[in-house]
Amino acid sequence: MYQSVSIIGGDKRQLYCAKAFLNDGLKVTLGGFDKLKSDGEFTILSPIEAIKNSELLVFPLPCIKGGKLNAPFSKEDVYFDEELLSSLSGKKIFTSMKDRLFEVAPKLKNEQVFDYSTREEFQVLNAVSTAEGALEIALREYEGTISKSRVLVCGYGRIGKALSEMLSFLNADVTVSARKESDLSWITMRRCKAVKTEKLCEQKPFDIIFNTVPALILDSYLLSHIAKNAIVIDLASVPGGVDFEACSRMDIFAIHALSLPGKASPKTAGETIKDTITNMLEEDKGCQKLA
Amino acid sequence: MYQSVSIIGGDKRQLYCAKAFLNDGLKVTLGGFDKLKSDGEFTILSPIEAIKNSELLVFPLPCIKGGKLNAPFSKEDVYFDEELLSSLSGKKIFTSMKDRLFEVAPKLKNEQVFDYSTREEFQVLNAVSTAEGALEIALREYEGTISKSRVLVCGYGRIGKALSEMLSFLNADVTVSARKESDLSWITMRRCKAVKTEKLCEQKPFDIIFNTVPALILDSYLLSHIAKNAIVIDLASVPGGVDFEACSRMDIFAIHALSLPGKASPKTAGETIKDTITNMLEEDKGCQKLA
Amino acid sequence: MYQSVSIIGGDKRQLYCAKAFLNDGLKVTLGGFDKLKSDGEFTILSPIEAIKNSELLVFPLPCIKGGKLNAPFSKEDVYFDEELLSSLSGKKIFTSMKDRLFEVAPKLKNEQVFDYSTREEFQVLNAVSTAEGALEIALREYEGTISKSRVLVCGYGRIGKALSEMLSFLNADVTVSARKESDLSWITMRRCKAVKTEKLCEQKPFDIIFNTVPALILDSYLLSHIAKNAIVIDLASVPGGVDFEACSRMDIFAIHALSLPGKASPKTAGETIKDTITNMLEEDKGCQKLA
Amino acid sequence: MYQSVSIIGGDKRQLYCAKAFLNDGLKVTLGGFDKLKSDGEFTILSPIEAIKNSELLVFPLPCIKGGKLNAPFSKEDVYFDEELLSSLSGKKIFTSMKDRLFEVAPKLKNEQVFDYSTREEFQVLNAVSTAEGALEIALREYEGTISKSRVLVCGYGRIGKALSEMLSFLNADVTVSARKESDLSWITMRRCKAVKTEKLCEQKPFDIIFNTVPALILDSYLLSHIAKNAIVIDLASVPGGVDFEACSRMDIFAIHALSLPGKASPKTAGETIKDTITNMLEEDKGCQKLA
Repeated sequence: MYQSVSIIGGDKRQLYCAKAFLNDGLKVTLGGFDKLKSDGEFTILSPIEAIKNSELLVFPLPCIKGGKLNAPFSKEDVYFDEELLSSLSGKKIFTSMKDRLFEVAPKLKNEQVFDYSTREEFQVLNAVSTAEGALEIALREYEGTISKSRVLVCGYGRIGKALSEMLSFLNADVTVSARKESDLSWITMRRCKAVKTEKLCEQKPFDIIFNTVPALILDSYLLSHIAKNAIVIDLASVPGGVDFEACSRMDIFAIHALSLPGKASPKTAGETIKDTITNMLEEDKGCQKLA
Repeated sequence: MYQSVSIIGGDKRQLYCAKAFLNDGLKVTLGGFDKLKSDGEFTILSPIEAIKNSELLVFPLPCIKGGKLNAPFSKEDVYFDEELLSSLSGKKIFTSMKDRLFEVAPKLKNEQVFDYSTREEFQVLNAVSTAEGALEIALREYEGTISKSRVLVCGYGRIGKALSEMLSFLNADVTVSARKESDLSWITMRRCKAVKTEKLCEQKPFDIIFNTVPALILDSYLLSHIAKNAIVIDLASVPGGVDFEACSRMDIFAIHALSLPGKASPKTAGETIKDTITNMLEEDKGCQKLA
Repeated sequence: MYQSVSIIGGDKRQLYCAKAFLNDGLKVTLGGFDKLKSDGEFTILSPIEAIKNSELLVFPLPCIKGGKLNAPFSKEDVYFDEELLSSLSGKKIFTSMKDRLFEVAPKLKNEQVFDYSTREEFQVLNAVSTAEGALEIALREYEGTISKSRVLVCGYGRIGKALSEMLSFLNADVTVSARKESDLSWITMRRCKAVKTEKLCEQKPFDIIFNTVPALILDSYLLSHIAKNAIVIDLASVPGGVDFEACSRMDIFAIHALSLPGKASPKTAGETIKDTITNMLEEDKGCQKLA
Repeated sequence: MYQSVSIIGGDKRQLYCAKAFLNDGLKVTLGGFDKLKSDGEFTILSPIEAIKNSELLVFPLPCIKGGKLNAPFSKEDVYFDEELLSSLSGKKIFTSMKDRLFEVAPKLKNEQVFDYSTREEFQVLNAVSTAEGALEIALREYEGTISKSRVLVCGYGRIGKALSEMLSFLNADVTVSARKESDLSWITMRRCKAVKTEKLCEQKPFDIIFNTVPALILDSYLLSHIAKNAIVIDLASVPGGVDFEACSRMDIFAIHALSLPGKASPKTAGETIKDTITNMLEEDKGCQKLA
């Protein structure tokens, strides 16, 4: 249906996304990538020229950084000024974090703007990618093998699910904490031990602790009970769920690992952005429910 | 039965080994560690004093480096001279790589020297540790997720087994190559695809290739067929099984990863040395078959 | 807190439930079990006497059968008449399928009636139990090994999840069908292939097909495309999701497997009823949200 | 290379084997199957006619029963008399249990007789098939779920390996007993607990016990310590490894499950016989080592 797409801003992930669209047979234009030289596959233009060139536009992840388009490969800053906004009129725009985009460019509320970053298929991939990045950190930092280590995963959302399954397969002794009784049941069905969050302090010390919950769970009291000799890896978004100051006081190695998917697997991240957008277009065609 | 053990030379692994003996209630002396300060748990003496101090002696892994004892934490070189050799007389010596020790100190052939590094339980742990180290490299170097990547593992010895099972659990699309028909059967029973080594060139390109076979399998012909865009990780001991020059010519990222257990999991390695020696002493007590 | 419980009606599951309460230190009375002889552990009384004997009452699964209490071990039918109803007044009643109970005994709407069968922990266990029962049927009926067989699981609810994970672990080549894009993502993350329900007809024939969706998915058209030589096992509640008449016409072995948990694992079912009720009482104590 | 094969005697497995040869494009003749009617795919002849018809001959599993060919689908007994023996002269004969065949027909020692039943690929499949059959029995007989049950597997040969991996994936709490220290290491690397055979009596009682060792391990002393309420499934060949009389005295449910592959998965068994013979022919062609 659609023949052309322009990738406007972004990092390595968007380059892999561009490549994936190319493999699907679309004409792909890059905007905001003038630090790179084209290798002939892509046309590299200024953002505005790139926007004019295609029906479909893809904004990066995150889309906005410091009030501007997130465009690390662009020599100049890209602002959502009148000229840019008018070039966007009538286009089909796929972006991440729609709300932040609207804060910077409220006029876009009148355009066709779709958010790929809230889609479940994108989030699941993100969770797997984050879990793999967390595993890499644990493999690097922990001086024993993951096999037979005592591991705690706080939280049983997407990341907690993906991570605890991986660790249990690698023969770790995995405990997962959650608040909901229903989560506890699934946890024990998947070869892990379950513990209610409020009973974490009764646990014996762990070797490695992963936090996925965006709330201060690992406070100094809990850390002193279960983390004395542990590696602590916090995966929750800022401000995280670990008292890092207490860790430093108690000489506990702790790391706040953010934005793992972009760092650990830009290829898969970029391909997933393409897949997600394709699914959204497909559903739209079939049943008109894009939005 | 035995009350005291001296750890003679070695790196971080031997310190963890010492700690593990301590937790078992033995008196532990360190020899060849005078770069470290004692924290009160261990007595640190010169190698000869340490040897005199205990009935059981543990030599490191490897035991010999450049004709001397492998003792990176010792300020001075430790040679197997007459003085040292005579202090060893009548002791129970546990070492790795017995043959290399005998080359340097042939007189020890008359002593009670036992090799923990050839024991199956030690080798299995080593394989798991190597597999985890290899996984860490793949997670770090490959730009996609392991999940859904196309992976090849060459060889189905201990490391090939441990590694291919891990990767399959992480949702990779795993192919294992082996020569023996009987290996091929087990491979396909464990959720992997099996291919005969001589038919590797018929495979489609892979994303990640691990080699565990100490023979030149991944030559330039094979690399050009199945490794064009792959990460190649060679785990076989020197000279390895990959034509690295060809890789560099073809711009294939290749890495020769050696001695992973010591680097990736010194804690588990040290504890396993202790466990293995304990098993050997146990068996000896029961049925006189230590050797 | 509570010291006594009466189990009113039910089959083998309720006997295991009674045993589990006994192991927790409660006094347990059975009502509606006069076909059995007491072995001294339990007191067996008439339903009304048993009801009077305890604060907590447990009704069976299902609670109602043919307008009466489901009590296969009772010599006489047990109706919800005035006498029984008045004995229930003021008691804490734990039942399955509350709505069906209220149809037969509307007055109970004024009493404290709690439904354990809608709780997630109960449902998860039920799903695992059903999946194991379904696996048993497949092992019995299919003439090949599950390992390497081509299997389809229709639906990715609790049973679909539990069953597809099991089968994939047993080295089957598992495809799962679902309608939601988000389900498809999780399916492929868990070592299975995903297919949209509407594209099932494009699949190659399967060896074994499990249906978990309570809607006619496996109609004669689909069966003729993907089930020609298959074993078909329908796990969906009446009327199921398989055109059984078409199966019989096409000589496809098909079975409608109902109420598997009670048949396959009454022990675990009974213990889970106890666990679930204990959780409900615990939460009630803590935060007054029993209901 | 070879164009025709005759299947001489055997049960359902040999029919599936015949079908598999047919799918490979060979001309297939059945001998010793005159109770069946041909459906046109196969030619059914008398054993001697069938033998004369092909270059390759396949004998069944077991090949000999009561001094005669094992041929349950033959109306008449088939003896290795002079006439039969002379028809076999010069043929390529693939059989199971070569030694038993030679006992009955010593003259065949001068012919080209090859044993497919001792090949590793055949044995591995047999192990998986036996493990699945054992799992089916456990699912049927045990009143709880396999998930979370306490299970013991005695022995870590092929069947012990296949079975313990399956059970651990199904979320059972699996202990495996073995004599060799090296086996114990692999067991604990594969998400199971390891125990030395001689320390089995120190274990807490199990829910389900599988024996794979052909030696009396589960004697009345051990049974009384770890099997009081257990289901005991003996998979070892006659006389097995369980004191069945003691089981009956102690009211322990015990079952001696023999010849599971033929019963549980004749299809896979038959196809594996074909695959194994094909591998043998292939190797012969390549490097002349058939034998």
